[in-house]
Amino acid sequence: MDKQKTTIQFLMEHADKRPVSFHMPGHKGASLYRRLGYGEFLDKFMDCDITEIPGADNLFQTEGILKRTQERYAGLYETDRSYMLINGTSGGIIAAILASVPAGGKLLMARNCHKSVFNALTLGNIAPVYLYPELIEEYGILGAVTPQEVQRAMEEEPQAAAVILPSPNYYGVCSDIRAIAKVVHRHGKILIVDQAHGAHLKWLGRGTGPVSAEEAGADIVINSIHKTLASFTQSAVLNLNSDRVDRYVLEDKLQAIQSTSPSYLLMASLDINADILEQQGTELMEQWQGNLRYFYEEVKRIPGIRVIDNLENFDYSKINIDTGLLGISASELENLLMERGVFAELTTGNILMLMTGIGNQRRDFDTLLHALRDIREKLGNRERDREPGKPGAAAGGNAGRAPEKKEIFAIPKAKQRLALERSEGKICASSIIPYPPGIPLICPGEKITAEDIRYIRSLRAGGEKVIGVNENGEVTVGA
Amino acid sequence: MDKQKTTIQFLMEHADKRPVSFHMPGHKGASLYRRLGYGEFLDKFMDCDITEIPGADNLFQTEGILKRTQERYAGLYETDRSYMLINGTSGGIIAAILASVPAGGKLLMARNCHKSVFNALTLGNIAPVYLYPELIEEYGILGAVTPQEVQRAMEEEPQAAAVILPSPNYYGVCSDIRAIAKVVHRHGKILIVDQAHGAHLKWLGRGTGPVSAEEAGADIVINSIHKTLASFTQSAVLNLNSDRVDRYVLEDKLQAIQSTSPSYLLMASLDINADILEQQGTELMEQWQGNLRYFYEEVKRIPGIRVIDNLENFDYSKINIDTGLLGISASELENLLMERGVFAELTTGNILMLMTGIGNQRRDFDTLLHALRDIREKLGNRERDREPGKPGAAAGGNAGRAPEKKEIFAIPKAKQRLALERSEGKICASSIIPYPPGIPLICPGEKITAEDIRYIRSLRAGGEKVIGVNENGEVTVGA
Repeated sequence: MDKQKTTIQFLMEHADKRPVSFHMPGHKGASLYRRLGYGEFLDKFMDCDITEIPGADNLFQTEGILKRTQERYAGLYETDRSYMLINGTSGGIIAAILASVPAGGKLLMARNCHKSVFNALTLGNIAPVYLYPELIEEYGILGAVTPQEVQRAMEEEPQAAAVILPSPNYYGVCSDIRAIAKVVHRHGKILIVDQAHGAHLKWLGRGTGPVSAEEAGADIVINSIHKTLASFTQSAVLNLNSDRVDRYVLEDKLQAIQSTSPSYLLMASLDINADILEQQGTELMEQWQGNLRYFYEEVKRIPGIRVIDNLENFDYSKINIDTGLLGISASELENLLMERGVFAELTTGNILMLMTGIGNQRRDFDTLLHALRDIREKLGNRERDREPGKPGAAAGGNAGRAPEKKEIFAIPKAKQRLALERSEGKICASSIIPYPPGIPLICPGEKITAEDIRYIRSLRAGGEKVIGVNENGEVTVGA
Repeated sequence: MDKQKTTIQFLMEHADKRPVSFHMPGHKGASLYRRLGYGEFLDKFMDCDITEIPGADNLFQTEGILKRTQERYAGLYETDRSYMLINGTSGGIIAAILASVPAGGKLLMARNCHKSVFNALTLGNIAPVYLYPELIEEYGILGAVTPQEVQRAMEEEPQAAAVILPSPNYYGVCSDIRAIAKVVHRHGKILIVDQAHGAHLKWLGRGTGPVSAEEAGADIVINSIHKTLASFTQSAVLNLNSDRVDRYVLEDKLQAIQSTSPSYLLMASLDINADILEQQGTELMEQWQGNLRYFYEEVKRIPGIRVIDNLENFDYSKINIDTGLLGISASELENLLMERGVFAELTTGNILMLMTGIGNQRRDFDTLLHALRDIREKLGNRERDREPGKPGAAAGGNAGRAPEKKEIFAIPKAKQRLALERSEGKICASSIIPYPPGIPLICPGEKITAEDIRYIRSLRAGGEKVIGVNENGEVTVGA
């Protein structure tokens, strides 16, 4: 990497490459706004970057234009109340938790929750009780959190005030929110769903795909509109879907966790997204669904390219390629695609995940298919023998590693920084988080194992970012 | 207000008015970027809205382009380390406090601190100890927090871990940070300065204006780059100016309080601002200073228009007009200026504050002067007798009201919503905050007085936003 390049230089050079984006955000670039009729906004956007002048309303006490935008979202999601978020879904998640769990309380949370959930624990002085998702052995990725797992945890910890889980998870696996909501509500508790990856579920493949968490009865649902739909990065929408949570308490937490100078650019993009969904949503969703169907059909014809296509309750807008048959790692496939101008979202061992969004066009899928065929050809005879179903064991090491059940010790008060290699057996004092996906591998209170160290080192050797390991290769553990 | 207008419609119509902006943000619109050579970025900006792909670095573990941008800021501010912020200065303030004060600890804070400081108390389980700024009687606005006041408070509360105050305050009054830093450090404590309104102090009128908090020895300084300089709203920079605060602890708080999907648009604008300051800063600052000098000279010739121009340690980039001699309120003057296409920032009683920024050109000041002359003429003989020096008493009621010293009771655990008019004598349970300026008028634990109620009612009657009073006119008080 050219360390002398400035941020602006990098961004402009990347834009000039006219890349095909299969990563966030969902708009995939300016072309979407231009072809849908929002070109004028693009031309004038910086003059729209204003403050709360008369008529501009106020995000934290909406009465005018911003109230209108939020009402549009409530109508679109068929929910009670919608709140625009400008500190990402992260801010919405933290506010939802702080509004649902009292200080000193307990939160039932999926172990593979997003980093922001773990941050909410600290900010709210809340103790976690982990729910463990299933493992989909065929692919070595985490699956759903089952209603039975939620039931088990609720019985063990009846004082826990709320439950939170990500659905879809980072790979696209959805949990049975309807059944989970029944369990949670039967115990009189609150269900929060991190739907960061599923803002589109309500409309994409309606009737065939997973149902949205709003429809399934969750109490609070947070949607990263920017990840798969048409707003700018860092903008999202929180839906209050029942009256189990006091809205004034929630609103107080929302104003506490977000800047008092919210960006009108972010809010404008949320407004445009609402407009797009209302005016052209049906058509766009049909096109998107059609393009996905097309892709999944065509990709079957490329030998050696295996995609996940046989799971239930799965969000197929995420394309997961298992590179095992190709004999390379997901990281290597990512690079080969980048050379061909195609950018993926996430690598984990042998799974390369590509996020499609409302902004992808048929030509993007064609470019991807073409690139895959080309790569397959060039790799040619590198295919190694492997048993069908084994998650890329032949590729050697680095099968995607999911956070495993660990004993939880007390979080160390006295801390020290120690080289990763010397931290075996130490108790983690600051989360270690491969990013993406931003799911803590090791949490404060968990012991660091030799296998952890091996895995982290391989990630870093592959150029992956691991939050919690500083530039000197040190982690923070108990002293 | 047309409640049917959408957010986008409002923003685009406002942009088309070609308004003259004397409010935030400091760029005042796209023209600044175009004339300084960043037009290409404006044309391609939405294609720059990406995620953490290879080469794009990661805000929470910077190693490449983002590290470079932060190093540029450290160089510009001549500070140890700089951190880009994308949840506004609010996020930086909360992180700074959480990194400096342990849970259960105490924080010495100016009573007129920004709302985010009050939110940090809740998020960090921190108890406030208030420092009371002086009152500038001549204008009825809050003045500096004196070193003596800090000394007094430190002696009363020796366990307080840190001190925080806003400098400049919302009107432009600066405190003597150098002397305050000496007091704070003598006691072994940490000094945090909310320099939201003074990101430009280091360069504007160098040698003649107030010194920057970084130069004056504060430990952490948070600058709202967007308020007066050239980045987009919601972007800011936190400067770590000493080693009294552990940077890893600070970085942990920063990642906790900000979205894990930071906007590359916000960060790009911060990079452009750094570029502007490095390449053209000297020239732009001289022009800005020259324009201010010009304005303050010319405005003297308009009878009845009185501006604050006789205070020490004052940031004169803020133009404060005392409307007393005109016989109208600041709100009325604001409207008259809006009719002439000029937009101000803040009204408080008889003080209308206009925020100049790096993006204002000479023509903006001429438009403002022209508008003021025109208004003065039309108001003609409405000038009423008043004693020189009295803060607009003749205008009747509503002299700007500063939060006063109140007895602090326990924050109510049991709460109720009550009509404002019936809340006299009740203990506030949820902050009541006129916005702008976003400084709590009444905090949880303080009693609501009849005068409070009168003042709040007059603000709302004048169309001002008061956070904490809901759409039914209710406040939250102890049950």
